[in-house]
Amino acid sequence: MTFDRVWLDAHLCTMVPRGGDPLGIIEDGAVAAKDGQIAWVGRRADLPDSAAIITSCAGGWILPGLIDCHTHLVFAGDRAREFEMRLEGASYEEIAKAGGGILSTVRATRAADEEQLAREALPRLDALLAEGVTTVEVKSGYGLDLETEARMLRAARRLGRERPVSIVTSLLAAHAVPPEYAGDGAGYARHVAEEMLPAIAAEGLADAVDAFTDAAIAFTPEQTEWVFRAAQAARLPVKLHADQLRDDGGAELAARYGALSADHIEYANLQGIAAMAKAGTVGVLLPGAFYFIREQHQPDIAAMRAAGLRLALATDMNPGSSPALSLLLMLNLGCTLFRLTVAEALTGVTRNAAAALGLHDRGVLAPGQRCDLAVYAINRPAELCYWIGRNPCMARVVGGR
Amino acid sequence: MTFDRVWLDAHLCTMVPRGGDPLGIIEDGAVAAKDGQIAWVGRRADLPDSAAIITSCAGGWILPGLIDCHTHLVFAGDRAREFEMRLEGASYEEIAKAGGGILSTVRATRAADEEQLAREALPRLDALLAEGVTTVEVKSGYGLDLETEARMLRAARRLGRERPVSIVTSLLAAHAVPPEYAGDGAGYARHVAEEMLPAIAAEGLADAVDAFTDAAIAFTPEQTEWVFRAAQAARLPVKLHADQLRDDGGAELAARYGALSADHIEYANLQGIAAMAKAGTVGVLLPGAFYFIREQHQPDIAAMRAAGLRLALATDMNPGSSPALSLLLMLNLGCTLFRLTVAEALTGVTRNAAAALGLHDRGVLAPGQRCDLAVYAINRPAELCYWIGRNPCMARVVGGR
Repeated sequence: MTFDRVWLDAHLCTMVPRGGDPLGIIEDGAVAAKDGQIAWVGRRADLPDSAAIITSCAGGWILPGLIDCHTHLVFAGDRAREFEMRLEGASYEEIAKAGGGILSTVRATRAADEEQLAREALPRLDALLAEGVTTVEVKSGYGLDLETEARMLRAARRLGRERPVSIVTSLLAAHAVPPEYAGDGAGYARHVAEEMLPAIAAEGLADAVDAFTDAAIAFTPEQTEWVFRAAQAARLPVKLHADQLRDDGGAELAARYGALSADHIEYANLQGIAAMAKAGTVGVLLPGAFYFIREQHQPDIAAMRAAGLRLALATDMNPGSSPALSLLLMLNLGCTLFRLTVAEALTGVTRNAAAALGLHDRGVLAPGQRCDLAVYAINRPAELCYWIGRNPCMARVVGGR
Repeated sequence: MTFDRVWLDAHLCTMVPRGGDPLGIIEDGAVAAKDGQIAWVGRRADLPDSAAIITSCAGGWILPGLIDCHTHLVFAGDRAREFEMRLEGASYEEIAKAGGGILSTVRATRAADEEQLAREALPRLDALLAEGVTTVEVKSGYGLDLETEARMLRAARRLGRERPVSIVTSLLAAHAVPPEYAGDGAGYARHVAEEMLPAIAAEGLADAVDAFTDAAIAFTPEQTEWVFRAAQAARLPVKLHADQLRDDGGAELAARYGALSADHIEYANLQGIAAMAKAGTVGVLLPGAFYFIREQHQPDIAAMRAAGLRLALATDMNPGSSPALSLLLMLNLGCTLFRLTVAEALTGVTRNAAAALGLHDRGVLAPGQRCDLAVYAINRPAELCYWIGRNPCMARVVGGR
């Protein structure tokens, strides 16, 4: 075998379960790359000879590059002032209903060109990458008109050219009702399904279609289905912001459309959880938003475990309800607030996060996968979940480089 | 006037309240240093001429260097495994009573020499400094014998020589009952008061004396008083871990001894809060520990405000109940969990944190103060509290350099 590069002097979390070990740990292991893919993974003692470039990882741990599978990274403007307001007592829903909140970001985003959107997002992206993230999902949803939604998605794609990272895009035109359709969510949802979505799909700007089902502040299940049917017609997979603030039957709806993921799901009911597990829909937990809006209703992790639901964790990075720029901190939040185990949390930002994006070429250390790696200066994998606000990332490898 | 250095192209949070502005904001301001102290602060337009070295801060914001006034930064060993245990359901108290928890850190710390203690603490210190922290309090408390407590404090002092930072030390020999005194907290408290404290004081290793009052897992109020009286005899100010898990009357006890601070105080009662305010004892809130141990009982912030109690915020960095290495994140936790205002949070890591350490030469931008500065790439001060896991620190100045 010939390799381009080899990483050793490291322990591996392959994330390929072996025996009773959900992390698939290989102590004193090695990873070899060829043509940007992982060509070999195993114990260093078994590493075949090859004239490759060797990198010593100084006794650290190698994981698959982390995947942040739910972000709203691209937007313009500033919501720190709203944060101050909320400390005066205004609620998330009150701010949304008062036309502040998300619509202030919509105004700023509509006023920004693609270059500005990318420029403002880059420091946020860099914060994620610094922790070992190699794949980032980015949603639109602050344009709420065809032109701006397309511009957001183009800005997201541009981020992937300006930094060594895979960007996966989701059209989230059905995020909120824009001012032009105030009081007419149905009219806007029809416009998304009939006009915006086909145009975005034709331009190849979106890898998936997302929607926010919430009968009080976003779209009804029926309106969501219009958007999902249009996505099916355009052969795009769907995702859903589901059951975040109340039980809207979102989990079941997502499962019915074979969604890649249903996200938030604090209020998902048992039938919905079972349906998701059966459909292969990943449950994406967003503890940053749970924490930031001080939600008290816990996602039913016990039921999700019992159903065999695959769980992912993401930052939900957004200016209104989760201004979070640390995926490692989400590991701690997921463990501390939701009582995920270390293995569940780590699987949630690797293997299951890949599944939540419909990606089969990453998320585990195995031959044939993209060689996206994150190397950490830690003594055991649990440290990635344990520390609060520490970044032990020593190195990041994207596509074998 | 002649200056050594000047910082401009910046807005200032002086933290000296002016009119209705608790942050003492000066837009387009300048700070000038001479001999390591702040020599001049004001509007740039009013800056006197001087042949000084000029640093442009690119439109950022300058605050007094941040002060982390409660940490257990020096220790040896690893508690990530215990974190995994806790996710299996073991409580903080159960772990403590089972002889695990803190005693595992005591064993590792006793086995480490001064050089190892400093070496293990340095990356943790560096994480704090990277966010703009310029003063760090470090407690002993994992030795629980004279030799190791002294070694911890020497290691802490050494950190202040190895990095540009002010280290302030507290003797926390009365942190837990060591195995040698199992079942005899009174005997150990007497040993601390009569033997350890005088020896540490004679060597000048401690700037203050701290104790953990908790009738169930640490020391009774009476035992605490033995230690406090010994501190008074040694002319050392006192601090107290008070009312964290139940109301032990700790707040009132701290006030009675004129403590610099009472820390945690989730369960402090109204009389205790009033007594603290009257005595000038600062209330140090530790939201990292509150979050990490999933405490549900909120500190009575409304009563603290009504009493005029000065509040500080700190990381409580420790391996058992707050493995937190981001003081900026504590701002967000303090605002999100305790509903502190932005001004209260920022005052809590500057002016009031200095007061919690008995320091009068820092914590505000004013002539005669140490020139310890933190410069941030933000649009408004609220951003320091708003972001979750973002570090916008551009520069750090310690003693004018």
